[in-house]
Amino acid sequence: MREGELLRHIYARSAGLAGIPQVAVGPGDDCAVVRAGGGDVLLKVDQVVAGRHFRPPPGTPIDLIARKAVGRAVSDIAAMAGTPVCSLAGAVLPPGAAWADELFDAMSVWAGRWGCPLVGGDICISEEPSPSPHGPGGLPVLGVTIMGTPHPARGPVLRSGARPGDGVYVTGLLGATLDPRTGLGHHLAFEPRLAEAMALADGLGAGLHAMMDISDGLGLDASRLAAASGVRIELDAGAFPLREGADWRGAAGDGEDYELLFTTDAGEIPIPAWRVGVVARGSGCTIRGPGGEVADAGAFGWEHGR
Amino acid sequence: MREGELLRHIYARSAGLAGIPQVAVGPGDDCAVVRAGGGDVLLKVDQVVAGRHFRPPPGTPIDLIARKAVGRAVSDIAAMAGTPVCSLAGAVLPPGAAWADELFDAMSVWAGRWGCPLVGGDICISEEPSPSPHGPGGLPVLGVTIMGTPHPARGPVLRSGARPGDGVYVTGLLGATLDPRTGLGHHLAFEPRLAEAMALADGLGAGLHAMMDISDGLGLDASRLAAASGVRIELDAGAFPLREGADWRGAAGDGEDYELLFTTDAGEIPIPAWRVGVVARGSGCTIRGPGGEVADAGAFGWEHGR
Repeated sequence: MREGELLRHIYARSAGLAGIPQVAVGPGDDCAVVRAGGGDVLLKVDQVVAGRHFRPPPGTPIDLIARKAVGRAVSDIAAMAGTPVCSLAGAVLPPGAAWADELFDAMSVWAGRWGCPLVGGDICISEEPSPSPHGPGGLPVLGVTIMGTPHPARGPVLRSGARPGDGVYVTGLLGATLDPRTGLGHHLAFEPRLAEAMALADGLGAGLHAMMDISDGLGLDASRLAAASGVRIELDAGAFPLREGADWRGAAGDGEDYELLFTTDAGEIPIPAWRVGVVARGSGCTIRGPGGEVADAGAFGWEHGR
Repeated sequence: MREGELLRHIYARSAGLAGIPQVAVGPGDDCAVVRAGGGDVLLKVDQVVAGRHFRPPPGTPIDLIARKAVGRAVSDIAAMAGTPVCSLAGAVLPPGAAWADELFDAMSVWAGRWGCPLVGGDICISEEPSPSPHGPGGLPVLGVTIMGTPHPARGPVLRSGARPGDGVYVTGLLGATLDPRTGLGHHLAFEPRLAEAMALADGLGAGLHAMMDISDGLGLDASRLAAASGVRIELDAGAFPLREGADWRGAAGDGEDYELLFTTDAGEIPIPAWRVGVVARGSGCTIRGPGGEVADAGAFGWEHGR
């Protein structure tokens, strides 16, 4: 079974959450939105399995692995224009992991830097060494839960608010996020777009219709945003901002960009952003290639379990 | 390295949290207490590694594994006299796990029953099958994060409030939590003491000085409560309420009881509870055995990584 199918199963289960007063937004968006303590909070859990989500080459600095694990969760708070409050980390480590202290220290530093100090942690040491140095027993499984608060005026920016006529924008360069020679690169060292998201919500207010972060590729993630909003999105490959070494296919499908993808009908965008497409009536998501050919955008991107 | 040492390292790191306004209680208690959304919330992450924390015999109902994973986290909310609000689940599953749907369905049902609907989830499928049917790749790693709210009048009940002169109480039978013939038993099918904790906080108010849940054994957990409170606890083995098949050593050290351990100077306890010791000035925690011999209570109990 593919992870995507399992996640869809969870989302389907969550239909039953509609009648539960404390749950404003259940599974399926970048974060859940839950009423607690007199206000709304954002919550998300994200896991990084080394050797599964990425295969760090021997000698990859522990600091980069920690940074990625925390940064992915922070990016989900940014995706809703939220502010991080705190985080919790769970880890399953291989036997005799002498770098466990270093890993948690580094996670703590990155969490603090992004405003979500680690307030809880749980560690398990797996019993059996892995048959492979890169197998599930040989490198860590890191799970990060993050809590945040929504933008005080705009509220949480969901995936479901895109409207026909909106422009579709991204906040930075796409593609070539992994250096094939070293295994390192942007996918390990991105900066979550907290400040950009805050500036968008401050500047556009209710005109910031929909937003998410790009983790699995612009093509697949824009398809998800279109589906959540009940609209059609038409992307123009000629407008994609390309990282050095990327072509438009990589920009659509490499994933791990952690840029913001948002839609708005505003004429001026308060931060640097690239207009990559438009929202139309209908359903589905397409990419018009440089030769004029039109492809299904959902075919570009990294689906878990593919 | 032992997990206990790692956790102490994390707690030491958390000393730096003292100056962070949103963190009322950092790592080291049953939950963190964090200010968000205009009030305080309780947060905890807990992991269950099958084959590590317990070794379910072949044929163990998936429902019981799901129940245990959620129940352990709920018990941490009860330990602070809190009310569950929502939960998130992360899972690393072996390849081809046909029971993944069943597992998440069961977790969703138990989370709903205990008032903390699953609002988020993340699933990873491990790449390589485990060399052992019970190894880390062969059975799931389940991480549950839970959010709750503290008691509206009493506030969160911490481990650190015990006072000399308090009685030390437990809410139910101890020991023999695992049936050695079947591998099943109380450790898989306990009921978190949410109602009992609420009744204690309602009835005793500020007189409910300290509380935690017993997960690693009365001896070790009472030692932790004594250390957190800066007091001495003297337990009397003759007063331990024994589950059928348990002796006082098992009651002190088997662990996985998930009863509440609390201290109070109140003369009347509003729920059924067993007085198992007293709080005194000083430090440390002892058990007086049936023959009058006195032992270090911290030597009884299950420490991670032991």
